[in-house]
Amino acid sequence: MNQPTNKNYQLLCSHFQSISHFEHLSALGDWDQAAMMPIGGGEARGAAMAELAKHIHSLKTAPMLEQTIAAAELEALTAQQQANLREIRYQYQQANIVPGSLVEAKTKAAYKCEQAWREQRSQNDWQGFRPNLENVLALAKEEAQIRAEALNISPYDALLDKFEPGMTSTRLEHIFGGLKSWLPGLIEQIQEKQRHQDRFQIPHASSDAQALLSRDVMTLLQFDFNHGRLDTSSHPFCGGVASDVRLTTRYDEADFTSGLMGVVHETGHAKYEQGLPLKWRGQPAGVARSMAIHESQSLFCEMQLGRGSAFLKQLQPMLQQRLDCNLSHEQLLNIYSRVTPGHIRVDADEVTYPCHILLRFEAEKALVGNQLAVADLPDFWSAQMQSLLGINTDGDYKNGCMQDIHWAVGEMGYFPSYTLGAMYAAQFRVAMEQQLGSMESLVASGHLSSVTGWLEHNIWSKGSLLTTDELVQQATGETLNPEYFKKHLLQRYGA
Amino acid sequence: MNQPTNKNYQLLCSHFQSISHFEHLSALGDWDQAAMMPIGGGEARGAAMAELAKHIHSLKTAPMLEQTIAAAELEALTAQQQANLREIRYQYQQANIVPGSLVEAKTKAAYKCEQAWREQRSQNDWQGFRPNLENVLALAKEEAQIRAEALNISPYDALLDKFEPGMTSTRLEHIFGGLKSWLPGLIEQIQEKQRHQDRFQIPHASSDAQALLSRDVMTLLQFDFNHGRLDTSSHPFCGGVASDVRLTTRYDEADFTSGLMGVVHETGHAKYEQGLPLKWRGQPAGVARSMAIHESQSLFCEMQLGRGSAFLKQLQPMLQQRLDCNLSHEQLLNIYSRVTPGHIRVDADEVTYPCHILLRFEAEKALVGNQLAVADLPDFWSAQMQSLLGINTDGDYKNGCMQDIHWAVGEMGYFPSYTLGAMYAAQFRVAMEQQLGSMESLVASGHLSSVTGWLEHNIWSKGSLLTTDELVQQATGETLNPEYFKKHLLQRYGA
Repeated sequence: MNQPTNKNYQLLCSHFQSISHFEHLSALGDWDQAAMMPIGGGEARGAAMAELAKHIHSLKTAPMLEQTIAAAELEALTAQQQANLREIRYQYQQANIVPGSLVEAKTKAAYKCEQAWREQRSQNDWQGFRPNLENVLALAKEEAQIRAEALNISPYDALLDKFEPGMTSTRLEHIFGGLKSWLPGLIEQIQEKQRHQDRFQIPHASSDAQALLSRDVMTLLQFDFNHGRLDTSSHPFCGGVASDVRLTTRYDEADFTSGLMGVVHETGHAKYEQGLPLKWRGQPAGVARSMAIHESQSLFCEMQLGRGSAFLKQLQPMLQQRLDCNLSHEQLLNIYSRVTPGHIRVDADEVTYPCHILLRFEAEKALVGNQLAVADLPDFWSAQMQSLLGINTDGDYKNGCMQDIHWAVGEMGYFPSYTLGAMYAAQFRVAMEQQLGSMESLVASGHLSSVTGWLEHNIWSKGSLLTTDELVQQATGETLNPEYFKKHLLQRYGA
Repeated sequence: MNQPTNKNYQLLCSHFQSISHFEHLSALGDWDQAAMMPIGGGEARGAAMAELAKHIHSLKTAPMLEQTIAAAELEALTAQQQANLREIRYQYQQANIVPGSLVEAKTKAAYKCEQAWREQRSQNDWQGFRPNLENVLALAKEEAQIRAEALNISPYDALLDKFEPGMTSTRLEHIFGGLKSWLPGLIEQIQEKQRHQDRFQIPHASSDAQALLSRDVMTLLQFDFNHGRLDTSSHPFCGGVASDVRLTTRYDEADFTSGLMGVVHETGHAKYEQGLPLKWRGQPAGVARSMAIHESQSLFCEMQLGRGSAFLKQLQPMLQQRLDCNLSHEQLLNIYSRVTPGHIRVDADEVTYPCHILLRFEAEKALVGNQLAVADLPDFWSAQMQSLLGINTDGDYKNGCMQDIHWAVGEMGYFPSYTLGAMYAAQFRVAMEQQLGSMESLVASGHLSSVTGWLEHNIWSKGSLLTTDELVQQATGETLNPEYFKKHLLQRYGA
């Protein structure tokens, strides 16, 4: 029998295919615990997920990998195979930095903290939440320290790198510093401009009716229900695997408008997953590029497309049919372009949203860098909210530092991805319009698939075959340029 | 540091605890694919579940087990620890018989066959189903052959043994032969007696209303919703893990009565799982004893308790409230004691039910023993149905040999457990009543918890600490005695 000329590479592919099977189960366990699992099932689930995380880690650090990767690097591979091998080496290196026992401990602590957080948040129970968060943070810091030493970067940068490979706090400070120089002024200016706008009564809408509406909107966005589903959870997310994407949302019967855009947002994530290259399923080159690129797709969908006039025009009859809602197109446009400083990040408009991220970025840096204790987080939060958005959160933990799931599950370093994503989304739109003409005109003339087609061709189908910089360079002609986001906000909201 | 005197035993406990974590994920994957997963997710899920099955198998056959078990058998252990060690050795032996590659191939084939079966069944598509079933059966036969050689028993007995350790086809032929001698006569006699009974209009009931009713009934039966949930699936089952039991049912809006007893049945399974000994969670001694004992608990709940007059009296106001159903207690009693030969096993009354099992037992034996080809199964089915229940199923595959999920997923040898379960249930009732007095009086006087308490004490809390024969002997004073089942049917239905 002939040996293939790239047998080491083939061996790696088969090994990482196995890993992807266990990651499939991990994604299922995460989705289930958030969307389905009764509280009493949490302890056993946490133990099972920790065992699984440890197992995946042991597969990613299998002793044979070092020399098999080295041997594969000498084999004759296509450009795409080389890209896959690059991602394989990256995953191997990342996993090797952290001991399996820490991976297991982190998973257990995260499960415990999150399970309790769900109830504690609704009870505004900061004192109950704090020790769990301290526990999770201690483990995140332990990981940060280990990664920092291995990569010779700062502990916080070592966490950023997990979600956005190559991103540094210095670069973020530069990007966010730019934002800080003009965003507060713009917010003030828009608020002044919108002060005298009419406010509309949002009609009551049952959860059942909103669920039907959500399916309609997902269908409009070409979500493939043969490869995914929609459920509810206390913290909306997009999970599952590319062949079976699990979205969740939540419904506020007194105000459907936020949940509706939540579904549009999560559908953006889902379309990215469903559009990942079929040929590379189960391989490291076949997964989504980074969290910032993932958020760019959800925010493209929600902010660039979803809050545009043409898309809202298509929603209007659906609202009428499903919710018996008589808001006019102009009223919808008005509602979805309102800029209102608020407590809750996920409910924020796109102009005040970056302020929520600035706060979290500063808090994370300080927590990981030992300049801020968990006990002092609520005061830090309130002071920052006051300074950035004029909001006091003293004593209101539920709508303050307890509102998000990320820290409860130990994901320190994730938040900047949201604002980077908003910036990439603006940049993608400009590039797309240079090729296809105005997105508004395309949507208005029934050519939404030209828009999704561009995203599929330039982003989704690339998986991780390119680095983030290569991906953005090929799609837009340059790497990340925050100016497009500024131009977008000025154009949509400016005086 | 002092070494524990039973360190080999402790090592085994820790190893099997790990295995139970992966089995937790396996149970979750199974439940999800039946109750939640969109069809398009099936291929990736099947691959993930096959990988997981292979991994669990590799853990159960780890090379260190042979000598660790042998060493543990020389250690000073309590009686319960000895029982756990016995179950550990049993699981190890069972796993060692079958190669991991066959476990993986079986899982893949079962997933493929089941996924397709769901659609094929509704389309009555026998020609589409047949090659998949042949494939699944070929693998089941391969397993049977390997097990038969290792255990020095017949291939079909080797499959029976998986679900009901120690059960043989000879013993079953004796038990079922007994049934055959009197059951057809009884069915005829009851039909004659019931020929002139009134028939009642069953009111239409929406799925939503039935779902609320189901929760009420589960609550009445003390199902713990903090450790479980209820959903719908095309084939009702009880899955999940002891700390998070996942029931499913299906609702027929034109006739709620079958779905309602389906929920009572599955709740019987669930109570067994929820009542397993907390102290032994994650250990082989802590799981349910056997499938026949499992079915004894569901059938106790559905047939002994659920169709009794006192329980139906408690259901009656719930039906009124949730379904606006005005059937009287007498009418309910009448409906739930009707004996009507029908096509569908899961909808069968308790008198004709064993006929469905007799048929499947004969078919399984013949299929595994190469006396029957899959291609000839429909004719075999129709002939047997004709002879046992006077029903012709020619061409009606959907309500014939395609109705059940078991063979589609390769579970040959499971069906006899149902009728063994019905026999155990009757036997348990007699023993319980000898200690507590009439179950009907207990339920009528609001002492349902005395009934569940007896089951918990004698069955649920024993897990697998006793063998099946020991369990039944301790609970009832003798091993399986089919006479109690006969007496029960004669007493409830006899002339």
